[in-house]
Formats: sequence, structure tokens, C-alpha cells
Amino acid sequence: MIFTAQIKVMPLKNLLDPQGKAVLGGLANLGITGISDVRIGKQIELSIEAENETVAREKSEDAAKKLLANQVMEMYEITIS
Amino acid sequence: MIFTAQIKVMPLKNLLDPQGKAVLGGLANLGITGISDVRIGKQIELSIEAENETVAREKSEDAAKKLLANQVMEMYEITIS
Repeated sequence: MIFTAQIKVMPLKNLLDPQGKAVLGGLANLGITGISDVRIGKQIELSIEAENETVAREKSEDAAKKLLANQVMEMYEITIS
Repeated sequence: MIFTAQIKVMPLKNLLDPQGKAVLGGLANLGITGISDVRIGKQIELSIEAENETVAREKSEDAAKKLLANQVMEMYEITIS
């Protein structure tokens, strides 16, 4: 069966996000007001061939830990569908 | 009121995603098997000060169209909470 894993990788809340700060400035320059904070992360979609959802989740966890997220600076969230 | 907008920006389905292809190769090298496709996009979190959800959604749409997504190559999805 083919599962789709959505992995969201975001910078940790208590760390600075310079890319987000740059976008915040850009939005203000474009006249879009009322935005107080911007944080930018990655969204990764995996198509996984696995027997069941548990196996698909394990593979995604493995991929996130070993390659996709740097856990010193980032947190990840996995959704399987 | 403060709303949080989650904007997911992904490369269009019918376009090549070289970053995804690179990750697909990386996962295979790490011994993580059964992954048939990888697509990589951005996840942007905005904190928006707005009167109601409709206004927050309008501001997010505006930000996505004008700055965050390149609609020639990318699609976006907005979730307000």
C-alpha cells in the first residue's frame, strides 16, 4: 500500500529565525500590516510503500531523524495519510 | 485577536523537484527503503493581529500571492487557527 507522509520541520521556538525576520520586513515593505511574527520551515512529502501505517510512520521517523531534521535546531511533526 | 496562519507552499505536481530527488537518493544511501517519491516545499507560520478570521485569511492570501509563493511554479494552502 502507498502512504503519504507529511513531515513538517520548523525551527525551535526559542531560536532566532533570520529567514522569518527577513520575510517580516518584506511584508511590511509591501504594505501588509498586522503581522507580528514569521517563522519559516520545511514541508516534506514522502510517498512510502509499506504494509501498514505503523511501518510507514517508522520509516518517516527514521528519515526525519537521520536526514530531514536537525534536532538541535529544529522540531518535526509527522502526519500519515 | 491573534491568529496563526500556516501557509504550505509546494512545487506544482507536474514540475520536477530536484531537491526532492536529491533527498530520495540520500534516503536510499542511508538504507531507508520503500520511498518512491519525495517533494520538498516550505512551511510558513504567520502570527497575525486581525479583527476576525476572514481578515486574517485575506492578509495571508495577500502575503502568499505577493511574496511567499511563486504561482508559476508553486501552489499554496492556507490554514488559519
